[in-house]
Amino acid sequence: MKFGRLNHVGVATPSIERSLETYRTLFGAEPSSPPFDLPAQGVRVCFVDAPNSQIELIEPLGADSPVAKFIEKNPQGGQHHVCFEVDDIEAARAHFEGIGTRILGPTRIGAHGTPIFFLHPKDTGGTLTEIMESPSQSH
Amino acid sequence: MKFGRLNHVGVATPSIERSLETYRTLFGAEPSSPPFDLPAQGVRVCFVDAPNSQIELIEPLGADSPVAKFIEKNPQGGQHHVCFEVDDIEAARAHFEGIGTRILGPTRIGAHGTPIFFLHPKDTGGTLTEIMESPSQSH
Repeated sequence: MKFGRLNHVGVATPSIERSLETYRTLFGAEPSSPPFDLPAQGVRVCFVDAPNSQIELIEPLGADSPVAKFIEKNPQGGQHHVCFEVDDIEAARAHFEGIGTRILGPTRIGAHGTPIFFLHPKDTGGTLTEIMESPSQSH
Repeated sequence: MKFGRLNHVGVATPSIERSLETYRTLFGAEPSSPPFDLPAQGVRVCFVDAPNSQIELIEPLGADSPVAKFIEKNPQGGQHHVCFEVDDIEAARAHFEGIGTRILGPTRIGAHGTPIFFLHPKDTGGTLTEIMESPSQSH
């Protein structure tokens, strides 16, 4: 296991449109592509590129969204997760299972089209952590 | 204003030593240098390098630390702030003042030895945001 690229920081928001306006005004930042829905994850998503990484804006898609509770507690939104890349998602999952790290749900396809899973924040020092197969490694 | 590098994600922790053990076990990650105190900020700090960015572990230095309240609310720790680089800290401050973004305190020297300031999370969509002059630009 080596420490992979920080692919993105996930930032929850009640409104992607309003967040994009904030990023535009504050930082002159534009989305890398239009927002899109990920119904399987219950979220609407939009990426904003920094030169070396990305901010992933995530808005709840319906009241059952896993992000809906976060927005209830943090009506303004805020930092939701960090995402690190790995070369091989299956090897990474086996590693975390082997050391007893709790994994939230099955491995599934994430916003970048590669397999992902989430580690429980109680096993990572309080930070919800997404593990994502690098786009360059995916096959 | 252009959107600068994501220099680091700040992660608050009740114990840098314990967090380093977690990063080692989970990710095979090691600190880039030993932890050090920043008494002016009321924090003890340690950086862990990802290939493209960094995690800044921050531990409260005494009960008056601005991070102490965060740890009270989140005893395990968790994501605390994001930090973006700018070429010119004075120009950046003037920009944010000009558009009415609330700035927390004076410009001061941060953990990387360059000038920094923080933007109020209420003006950034809920994310405490550090603005940092790039080490390469500093003079």
